[in-house]
Amino acid sequence: MIVDISKKILIVGLGLLGGSYAKALKRFGFRISAITKEQSAIDYAIKENIIDEGSTEIDERLIKDADLVIFALYPHVFMEWIEQNQNLLKSGALITDVTGVKGSIVYKIQDILRSDVEFIAAHPMAGREVSGVENSTDQMFVGANYIVTPTDKNTPEAISTCMELGRLLGFSNVTTLSPEEHDEMIGFLSQLTHCIAITLMTCNDRENMEKFTGDSFRDLTRIARINDLMWSELFMANKEALLCQMDMFINKFNELKSMLEEEDVDEMRKMMRHSTERRALFDKK
Amino acid sequence: MIVDISKKILIVGLGLLGGSYAKALKRFGFRISAITKEQSAIDYAIKENIIDEGSTEIDERLIKDADLVIFALYPHVFMEWIEQNQNLLKSGALITDVTGVKGSIVYKIQDILRSDVEFIAAHPMAGREVSGVENSTDQMFVGANYIVTPTDKNTPEAISTCMELGRLLGFSNVTTLSPEEHDEMIGFLSQLTHCIAITLMTCNDRENMEKFTGDSFRDLTRIARINDLMWSELFMANKEALLCQMDMFINKFNELKSMLEEEDVDEMRKMMRHSTERRALFDKK
Repeated sequence: MIVDISKKILIVGLGLLGGSYAKALKRFGFRISAITKEQSAIDYAIKENIIDEGSTEIDERLIKDADLVIFALYPHVFMEWIEQNQNLLKSGALITDVTGVKGSIVYKIQDILRSDVEFIAAHPMAGREVSGVENSTDQMFVGANYIVTPTDKNTPEAISTCMELGRLLGFSNVTTLSPEEHDEMIGFLSQLTHCIAITLMTCNDRENMEKFTGDSFRDLTRIARINDLMWSELFMANKEALLCQMDMFINKFNELKSMLEEEDVDEMRKMMRHSTERRALFDKK
Repeated sequence: MIVDISKKILIVGLGLLGGSYAKALKRFGFRISAITKEQSAIDYAIKENIIDEGSTEIDERLIKDADLVIFALYPHVFMEWIEQNQNLLKSGALITDVTGVKGSIVYKIQDILRSDVEFIAAHPMAGREVSGVENSTDQMFVGANYIVTPTDKNTPEAISTCMELGRLLGFSNVTTLSPEEHDEMIGFLSQLTHCIAITLMTCNDRENMEKFTGDSFRDLTRIARINDLMWSELFMANKEALLCQMDMFINKFNELKSMLEEEDVDEMRKMMRHSTERRALFDKK
């Protein structure tokens, strides 16, 4: 399947990400529908002309019409949806997702899915500290990374369609990783960073610190404003990989602490120069 | 002394901060001179009309003329400068600084300083990942905090003059702390955050991670591009307070790790909600 504009797209879960997908894809003129919990989200999205129609119910017609279904749900809700409603999908439909963990989700979905429907998983590496379709913006994808995580069960066509979707959405880099590589990478780049931010934000309850702070503390804690329901589920779904990354971080942090205790300025400066060098790689291109 | 525009200001050390001070104060029409190592910095600042004159030498006339001297130097260079050149200061001059640590500096300087000159210490909580007078900007102070750290040796006049200076520079919040409170606060808000950032940046040397990263990792490592000479000196000068803050962080991080190991989702979510609540205090007003 090529993502030409005759294809009908259904987005399940019209929050910040689902809404931003709708907004980005609407630019090309796709017919887009949505199924989501809140009528207010549907109303908003129709008014803003980012979807054509929507429902808060399991609308059989919308589901059966869709060539491409994008699931922007919590992991366990996604799983339940497939178990309960996959019989409604159109034969030959392609489904994809935005889930932030892969190993614990992708194989299970592919195992239970009908053989005439294909699931190709993807993770858009973009987010904001706010939620809801009202905050959606396709600008979120500019300069950002989109990771497709195929398995042996995926066809080359589905993989290339999903990569094309990432480019249409406006992501600057579209790549593939295995689900296991993805989870290791994300355990480090995203989950560990959230662990650090919430620890920093809660380890010192002294009052009035906001009057003395500089921008470095603000930067390190931007993501400390966190959706507890979603992130606790993501942490649990990637438990082993995340624990490894936490250990790796603690070990290095303790090395730095020893350097300071032993007043080993040379080693400290070496670590800082290494840090400066590696950080240059991560500037947005 | 009130900072009226008849006062002559000398800035010693014309880098990013010294240059930004000059730029901010020049808006009011002060006569500003500078002493710094590089002739190119003087030339640039004169061309940009942010200082009136400058020298790369210990220029006796410039020093003797100054009513207010602002030291924007590394801690040990500041100390040496006072030891070697304080005899050149004008009687009645007020001196201040931008040093990022206080306890290990302020009392020593005040102890050795001539009795007809007063040192009132301050810490502008503003910085960038770039250095040099060419990158200076008075915009750096907008929304930022300025901390004055008086001791028993300071007069009320000097304290209020220094606080006025902070407001003239354009800082949004001007407050006072004792040197000890300052060092504890800064150990947490600034030094610990730099320790975390350089640890995160160096604890995993896997290649190509920049292709998979999201913004959270970029945010947490912005300050991982670090001046190794300056920060190793600042860490050493605040060793005990920083070690305490590092321990506090490690303890909390290990608590979070235990919650994950034990799959205690309730506790994890409680910590995340606490984090979200506290982070709201730190938004720029």
